[in-house]
Amino acid sequence: MRIALLGGTGDIGEGLALRLARDTTHEVVVGSRTAEKAASAVEEYADRLGDDLTAELSSAENDDAAVDADVVAVCVPPYHVSDTVESVADQLDDAVLVSPAVGISRDDEGFHYNRPPHGSVAEVAAEAAPDAVQVVGAFQNLAAGALADLEHDLGFDVIVTGDDADAKATVTALVEEIDGLRALDGGALANSAEVEAMTPLLINLAVENDGLHDLGVSFH
Amino acid sequence: MRIALLGGTGDIGEGLALRLARDTTHEVVVGSRTAEKAASAVEEYADRLGDDLTAELSSAENDDAAVDADVVAVCVPPYHVSDTVESVADQLDDAVLVSPAVGISRDDEGFHYNRPPHGSVAEVAAEAAPDAVQVVGAFQNLAAGALADLEHDLGFDVIVTGDDADAKATVTALVEEIDGLRALDGGALANSAEVEAMTPLLINLAVENDGLHDLGVSFH
Repeated sequence: MRIALLGGTGDIGEGLALRLARDTTHEVVVGSRTAEKAASAVEEYADRLGDDLTAELSSAENDDAAVDADVVAVCVPPYHVSDTVESVADQLDDAVLVSPAVGISRDDEGFHYNRPPHGSVAEVAAEAAPDAVQVVGAFQNLAAGALADLEHDLGFDVIVTGDDADAKATVTALVEEIDGLRALDGGALANSAEVEAMTPLLINLAVENDGLHDLGVSFH
Repeated sequence: MRIALLGGTGDIGEGLALRLARDTTHEVVVGSRTAEKAASAVEEYADRLGDDLTAELSSAENDDAAVDADVVAVCVPPYHVSDTVESVADQLDDAVLVSPAVGISRDDEGFHYNRPPHGSVAEVAAEAAPDAVQVVGAFQNLAAGALADLEHDLGFDVIVTGDDADAKATVTALVEEIDGLRALDGGALANSAEVEAMTPLLINLAVENDGLHDLGVSFH
């Protein structure tokens, strides 16, 4: 399977690239706004992985990264999601689009969910994508720091939302290929807001509680 | 400590009454709109607890239940929170007001967080309470079914939000007296919306995933 990480040099992109490169044998393409930036990130990731690199890791401009991809994860800040999806729209074909981004605001009292008018970032991505492209929300609640620290045993749940069973099955399988992640079905894409809202909550918990940092969540 | 559970005959009230009655030695007053309903609930709770009853369990009308209470938990549906708090306002004195309620809507796609104009139900309670009364958000993410099933080992986290350190400390200590609950500091009361929003997410997960029901959450 070919997996494109648009914005694969950013926080969550870095973590996903490293974990997918270590725990799977897929073709993982790190995309960025410039080919140079993507290439330099991949060089660094490969260095850090050393002999643990099992995937086929490559780099490209975002636009090229999406070509022929089975899964395209939009690992850019929430305010760039719409533009980024539109910029690769012609390349998406049958790809499943994955939305891990969350809008977060901060004030004196803490971090808060900045809910987009479309309901969630995942729905913003769906609005920007061609009608035939299925969008799946996933990975929003993973701390980038935990993900990028390959010594960190995750043991976290990832909630998968979406309106197409096949697209969700693809993403669910991918989530569970990463060591220490369990995928849970969150239902329809319209249920993504509550998933995204948990991310500022996780940050508040990390700020307020000694000994909890880069935390994640388990349901039982 | 005297703990009043307003609406202590409802779902979350029942569960809190049973757990507090079994796991603590406090004075637990089950409140309801009528004294008869409260008395009949307490009789049933005492029956179910049998020899495991360690608290001093009693019943009263909501209004009387709040008199001299150290902690008043507003275990009523979200649309009754404001009226209920106003109806006991003169009795609150130095009590800490605890808000476990969550506004949830449902449509064909799932359960969704119904965010009140004040930001959260906890902030609705604060708006309705006298200025001197401290409001703390807690217990929102506990499944009533798990709480009321005394055979169910919880192992869940409870997020405590509020603007007064002493009030939060009181509620934190109370949470941790219940077997299987860990209290985490969620920061300011303004951070309550993200906590409340997790409850419809938990319901969606219970609906969509085999083997997950009456589920709760752990952070690590």
